[in-house]
Amino acid sequence: MRSTMQDVPLSVGDLVRYGTSVHSRARITTWTGGEPRRATLGEVGARAARLAHALRGLGVAGDERVATFQWNNQEHLEAYLAVPAMGAVLHTLNIRLHADQVAYIADHAEDRVVIVDASLVPVFAPVLPRLRTVRHVIVAGGEPGGLAAEGVEVHSYEDLLAQRPDTFDWPEIDERDAAAMCYTSGTTGAPKGVAYSHRSMYLHSMQVCMTDGMAVAQGDTVLAVVPMFHAMSWGLPFAALMVGASLVLPDRFLQPGPLADMIQAERPTIAAAVPTIWHGLLEELEAAPRDVSSLHSVIVGGAACPPSLMERFEERYGVPMLHAWGMTETSPLGSFARPPAEAAGSERRAYRLSQGRLPASVRGRLIGPDGAPVPHDGASVGELEVRGPWVTGSYYGGEDPEKFHDGWLRTGDVGSLTPDGFLRLTDRAKDVIKTGGEWISSVELENSVMAHPDVAEAAVVAVADPKWDERPLVAVVLRDGAAAGAPELREFLAEKMARWQLPEFWTFVAEVPKTSVGKFDKKTLRSRHASGELEVVDTRE
Amino acid sequence: MRSTMQDVPLSVGDLVRYGTSVHSRARITTWTGGEPRRATLGEVGARAARLAHALRGLGVAGDERVATFQWNNQEHLEAYLAVPAMGAVLHTLNIRLHADQVAYIADHAEDRVVIVDASLVPVFAPVLPRLRTVRHVIVAGGEPGGLAAEGVEVHSYEDLLAQRPDTFDWPEIDERDAAAMCYTSGTTGAPKGVAYSHRSMYLHSMQVCMTDGMAVAQGDTVLAVVPMFHAMSWGLPFAALMVGASLVLPDRFLQPGPLADMIQAERPTIAAAVPTIWHGLLEELEAAPRDVSSLHSVIVGGAACPPSLMERFEERYGVPMLHAWGMTETSPLGSFARPPAEAAGSERRAYRLSQGRLPASVRGRLIGPDGAPVPHDGASVGELEVRGPWVTGSYYGGEDPEKFHDGWLRTGDVGSLTPDGFLRLTDRAKDVIKTGGEWISSVELENSVMAHPDVAEAAVVAVADPKWDERPLVAVVLRDGAAAGAPELREFLAEKMARWQLPEFWTFVAEVPKTSVGKFDKKTLRSRHASGELEVVDTRE
Ligand SMILES: Nc1ncnc2c1ncn2[C@@H]1O[C@H](COP(=O)(O)OP(=O)(O)OP(=O)(O)O)[C@@H](O)[C@H]1O
Ligand SMILES: Nc1ncnc2c1ncn2[C@@H]1O[C@H](COP(=O)(O)OP(=O)(O)OP(=O)(O)O)[C@@H](O)[C@H]1O
Ligand SMILES: [Mg+2]
Ligand SMILES: [Mg+2]
Repeated sequence: MRSTMQDVPLSVGDLVRYGTSVHSRARITTWTGGEPRRATLGEVGARAARLAHALRGLGVAGDERVATFQWNNQEHLEAYLAVPAMGAVLHTLNIRLHADQVAYIADHAEDRVVIVDASLVPVFAPVLPRLRTVRHVIVAGGEPGGLAAEGVEVHSYEDLLAQRPDTFDWPEIDERDAAAMCYTSGTTGAPKGVAYSHRSMYLHSMQVCMTDGMAVAQGDTVLAVVPMFHAMSWGLPFAALMVGASLVLPDRFLQPGPLADMIQAERPTIAAAVPTIWHGLLEELEAAPRDVSSLHSVIVGGAACPPSLMERFEERYGVPMLHAWGMTETSPLGSFARPPAEAAGSERRAYRLSQGRLPASVRGRLIGPDGAPVPHDGASVGELEVRGPWVTGSYYGGEDPEKFHDGWLRTGDVGSLTPDGFLRLTDRAKDVIKTGGEWISSVELENSVMAHPDVAEAAVVAVADPKWDERPLVAVVLRDGAAAGAPELREFLAEKMARWQLPEFWTFVAEVPKTSVGKFDKKTLRSRHASGELEVVDTRE
Repeated sequence: MRSTMQDVPLSVGDLVRYGTSVHSRARITTWTGGEPRRATLGEVGARAARLAHALRGLGVAGDERVATFQWNNQEHLEAYLAVPAMGAVLHTLNIRLHADQVAYIADHAEDRVVIVDASLVPVFAPVLPRLRTVRHVIVAGGEPGGLAAEGVEVHSYEDLLAQRPDTFDWPEIDERDAAAMCYTSGTTGAPKGVAYSHRSMYLHSMQVCMTDGMAVAQGDTVLAVVPMFHAMSWGLPFAALMVGASLVLPDRFLQPGPLADMIQAERPTIAAAVPTIWHGLLEELEAAPRDVSSLHSVIVGGAACPPSLMERFEERYGVPMLHAWGMTETSPLGSFARPPAEAAGSERRAYRLSQGRLPASVRGRLIGPDGAPVPHDGASVGELEVRGPWVTGSYYGGEDPEKFHDGWLRTGDVGSLTPDGFLRLTDRAKDVIKTGGEWISSVELENSVMAHPDVAEAAVVAVADPKWDERPLVAVVLRDGAAAGAPELREFLAEKMARWQLPEFWTFVAEVPKTSVGKFDKKTLRSRHASGELEVVDTRE
């Protein structure tokens, strides 16, 4: 029996129509270093309509891809609204990748138009001549000089928007059609493409606004540090649109100093970023205190949150950190670490440090090395597979089909699930250290080392070992002025770890290499080690 | 371009699978007058599986309708879970309707099985012999005596569940298929049927759990006073399942005394009911105080919340009331009166007393008497039409097609919309008093009369008038021991109203007649007046 319900597709166009009218007074603030640029969501909506007209004027039709090469700022948000709502596909390019990779991704997605931030023209210039499908480049936030390629027209964003109508008749769209594309970060290999649907983005936005999700609501001001080119800035722009939350966008001012200034000045209630950003902010606040008391939730994800980070933030600044796990492939919200209301003390702390609870819409299962399901007992470990309406079922272009298993996504993340649905990741499958038939979690080892007061950051990779197959190598960044050596750090670990887990190989580095989105770049660490660039201390000697 | 997202239907089965496992420790408490009956959601899930097996055993297949004739209690919840999840259609019958109406509705929906609460057997007995499609009656919570009809088997619920498996392999279902049916309250005419889909119930549950919705979350305990036979208890059971909130179910103990006891003993954080229930509770608390401090939100809807009710509740008990508007036709959450964060003082109060803001998924428009759209300026009044994924697009069986207009539902509610999306209903189209070419809102007049300290309740209907077409008749229930007369009440109104609006006709009654779900029953009031049953005071005399 069919229901009698109306057949109304879930669409970004409806979110745009609703958010920019009903919540037209929400504030969109872009940091500039000086006086911030301020607009209302109503104004952004009008400019998004102009942008849609401009894109139609350039011939963008059907599901053509319109790419962005932009910071988190007002113009990028305008593209977020206009492109999916007009029925085209928004493709957010990662501005931090190597030119070869950007060109590969833009070609792979068959981008037709690219909107480039003026400050990024020097970065984009070497990419442009290699692009085979792009016909128009639009430069936002400055003059369109310095870009040229055969068969490509270069435009000024503001010129294109001028004299266009302030409203656009957003078309009705099949909710399963693509609204946006994003490629993975390339932490483990070449980036792979995911195409989100109108349906998935709408449902994901609802989840972000659920009280047990990120609880984004009208009246919140969300500081979206996590890049809009990285997994849709964790869905925050669309969630804000859905409920009328205000946004603070840091543009290119992602250094700890400006971020601290931004928080003090703009008083966001929610802020979201990867651990390295919060780590930097913490150091900054210690050097030069700012008022961060407006924050009711600091969301941390994209990589495991070190316990020491969560504790320092909360103890010193009274700011609650919420740990989330997700992937580009999962839109990205996969789990969210709000502890059960009844948990207290150390149990509560453990829940908060876990990767969080999977919501009703994200089913999880664990598959052991033998391919058999692993029980959700909070102890047994396996590769996490997920299924749900905002989880991808393939990569764009059909790459890596082995990542999909009977309709489930194989995450490449390894860990356990508790009976009450909490995920505790021990590692990426590629980063686990397999030693003498046992596994060492690189993440747990990193967290233990980072708990030492002299250590600012620590990253662990496997190195080949003739006897044990693999052994851990710990790359340590010491705090300014600190002097702990490998024997002392090893001694420190000996209190909490079994002997066979204690690392013998250590290296002291000025900085842990980071990926394009600020995660520990273990690929690079491994290759530096392989090429002999790292000076390794062997504590057995 | 198709997205790469997985094609996972939104379904009640998934909610059941998730909620009863991940949130198996949530508490389901049924009031009994004595020691409450307690179960965990995990136990309810196991019993729902048994029920599904039992129903299959009785031959329930495909989309057959399984009706309930039950209070809000654990067994009713078991049916809520089992019936939609197994692919059948749950049909909640209104236990307070006249036997003729129940029989009409059950036949109309072609119910196959009815689950009846033992305490309601005397009410159901006269209905049963008239039912043409029912083949099985299952009596829950007591012995199955006292029911008989030709061709109908009568079973004991517990006997049927005994020895069935504790798990059921919930099938995958097309999300647009019907999951549940409900008929309107019959306030304005014969009840009309609505068939909710798996999709609509899932989306609606997400909305209920959004921070700007009812904000239901893990750790909440929800007292669902609003009947499970009335618009799915406002979606609270499924929302609770989605996030693992606990439920307190009042069974047949809906009188103010037991409700107050329940709140004190079970400490719910959220409670939901129509204004008359809260009105009764208030009187009860005044007579015999109880601790109601556990409540962080008291949700009121189904009829306009009188300002005096909201104020007394908040001032005397510090309990915040949240006003919501909805219809059986809208699943039912249509709008929710959380004021904009920036509103303060009297503006904030006005927002809270409005019917609330329409969320992104419920589009609204106003149509004037001439059929033309009315602006959303907070002043212009028209009939509200709504559109969205959990709004019905027809009545079951195709009745009243004139209630649908280009894919929108004509709500029969009259009011204004503000530019920021808040709905302010002035009346039902059928209740507006049309006098001398002007309109008087019966609801506003009622609220003004109820603001008088001597008045407990007031209901206004139109009476025919030779000169003005219609004039208001006010039916007043005085507080115990109060003695205000019509001239005094009219004098009281004169301070706030224009002369032509002041009612001349008054009647003093012991009680305002109520519908099956506790709304003012103006149909009955009108017919009592027409038959001369009411003693009318004419203040002109
Ligand atoms: N809270 C977290 N704790 C631990 N790891 C996390 C957390 N959040 C995200 N991750 C890691 O980030 C991954 C998803 O990141 P993203 O989609 O940005 O690409 P990537 O996996 O880093 O890159 P690629 O897939 O191209 O190698 C997850 O699979 C997981 O390994
Ligand atoms: N907060 C509210 N303020 C004013 N009226 C409300 C409110 N909430 C609900 N209503 C009224 O209740 C109606 C929906 O109620 P319901 O679906 O129970 O059936 P009914 O309209 O009372 O009965 P019928 O449609 O059979 O005549 C709305 O159309 C509206 O008139
Ligand atoms: Mg990955
Ligand atoms: Mg109605």
